[in-house]
Amino acid sequence: MRFALTILGANAAMPASGRFPSAQVLQIGNQFFLIDCGEGAQIRMSDFQIPRYKINQIFISHLHGDHVFGLPGLFFSYALNDRVKPIEIFSPSGLREMIMAQLNPGGQLPFQLVFHEFDTSVSKLIFENDTVEVVTLPLLHRIPTAGFLFREKPKPRNMLPEKILEYDLSIPQIKAAKVGEDILLNDGRKIQNSELTKAPPPPRSFAYVSDTAYYEKIVPLIRDVDLLYHETTFCEDLIDMAQVTMHSTALQAGRIAAMANARKLITGHYSSRYRDVEVFRAEAQTVFPNTDLGLDGKVYEVTN
Amino acid sequence: MRFALTILGANAAMPASGRFPSAQVLQIGNQFFLIDCGEGAQIRMSDFQIPRYKINQIFISHLHGDHVFGLPGLFFSYALNDRVKPIEIFSPSGLREMIMAQLNPGGQLPFQLVFHEFDTSVSKLIFENDTVEVVTLPLLHRIPTAGFLFREKPKPRNMLPEKILEYDLSIPQIKAAKVGEDILLNDGRKIQNSELTKAPPPPRSFAYVSDTAYYEKIVPLIRDVDLLYHETTFCEDLIDMAQVTMHSTALQAGRIAAMANARKLITGHYSSRYRDVEVFRAEAQTVFPNTDLGLDGKVYEVTN
Repeated sequence: MRFALTILGANAAMPASGRFPSAQVLQIGNQFFLIDCGEGAQIRMSDFQIPRYKINQIFISHLHGDHVFGLPGLFFSYALNDRVKPIEIFSPSGLREMIMAQLNPGGQLPFQLVFHEFDTSVSKLIFENDTVEVVTLPLLHRIPTAGFLFREKPKPRNMLPEKILEYDLSIPQIKAAKVGEDILLNDGRKIQNSELTKAPPPPRSFAYVSDTAYYEKIVPLIRDVDLLYHETTFCEDLIDMAQVTMHSTALQAGRIAAMANARKLITGHYSSRYRDVEVFRAEAQTVFPNTDLGLDGKVYEVTN
Repeated sequence: MRFALTILGANAAMPASGRFPSAQVLQIGNQFFLIDCGEGAQIRMSDFQIPRYKINQIFISHLHGDHVFGLPGLFFSYALNDRVKPIEIFSPSGLREMIMAQLNPGGQLPFQLVFHEFDTSVSKLIFENDTVEVVTLPLLHRIPTAGFLFREKPKPRNMLPEKILEYDLSIPQIKAAKVGEDILLNDGRKIQNSELTKAPPPPRSFAYVSDTAYYEKIVPLIRDVDLLYHETTFCEDLIDMAQVTMHSTALQAGRIAAMANARKLITGHYSSRYRDVEVFRAEAQTVFPNTDLGLDGKVYEVTN
């Protein structure tokens, strides 16, 4: 099952130098989750071959324009294509009013927008289905803001087919083995689960740490995450600016990644003051070597 | 003085195939007028080196999303750059509410938005300064819609310098000659204006005919226009669709251009159903040969 992140826009507030504002798409199997939706996100979906009609859930970290101004255009395009499937939108409060004010002149949408508002001050499970769960990550920004932790649900253990034959296991016995139980055979023998099954691949995870000042409280929430996107609006040369605007430097993002024992860090949300963004990677790598420079169109696959 | 139109987005509602939704910039000398502002217009301004801070007037033809969804992002970027100069926005009624609902979460803008609403049912002068005037063109669409005619004001006649010396003309006499008067010299001789001045270059004009069904009533309003942009959402193969949605075909746009005796026609607002848009030019050229295929990034200079 594919677990892949595509960066639609890697820039901060102002689009510049070919970088669009914040938007990402996480693919988990056949599910596509849109995370933030800056202006032009739907254009980037075309550019990068994202099947936009497979998006059924949208997660918005906060209501600054560079994270939401792409929503009306996306919905408008869905309407033109006669979409009927509802869309769920998870966001801090206030988004519904912003969106509805934009859509009214065009009339009713042919599909339902289902708004789920969450409290950004606590970490909470806001979405789950058979394979995935999404938990909010409270952040520290100028307005209520939360990141998101996407986590695969643990899969059942894998049955070893030859053992089914060897012990002539019934369906209920197989089901029990898959959830880790030892099996009592009809002849009284007890077979250890470890002989019957092998461990499934470990669940994969992605943490989206959107606009935030340096904030160590998120570390326990994202510990051992496979892929960590952490905003890096500035480098240390503009740390004063980072503090005033409640953003992070690349060095700070690297520190969070190191403390959380992340497998990989992706930078992004670059201030337009930086034309050459290579400096962000270099700075983060001084404390967290496995850092990659997030750029529009880059795709990150997480393998087991 | 430069008179040049840049296409920022040539597509209809849904961005597709590298074509952004509707937005154009008309440069007249040192003035830059933004005409419609679909999603991503500010990104296109960066792409095509339009100095966005020189835009002080924005003209919106109607409130469908593909013509206005780029406004909040543009204003947001201006705010980040500490713009203080007001912006005038000319539009049908209702735009203010759409915009304000988007900007509230980000707080106050550091510059003023001055909304001028116009009645789309009559042709009216809505803007003028020393060099330019803008007149609305009532159109026929699903919601109130108007196009715009941009026209240079007639310039004074050009004084022939050698005649100033020959007749020892005073400043008041020169001023009178420039507006076309004959001059009475102190010695009683009367000099014909045609001996003192030559005609200025003729005023240039551009007509922006946004979303509309075929509508011959605009012809007298745009007669002899230098540059005519007329929407061409469909070709004749989809004329039924054009009628239902109140859009025009390329053939219809060509007919309007021919009837109006335009110098040049530019097509645009292509439906995403068309991947190859060359057909639009071919179809319009059957009735109006001097047709150019409008595409993102193309620039049209109007010379005298």
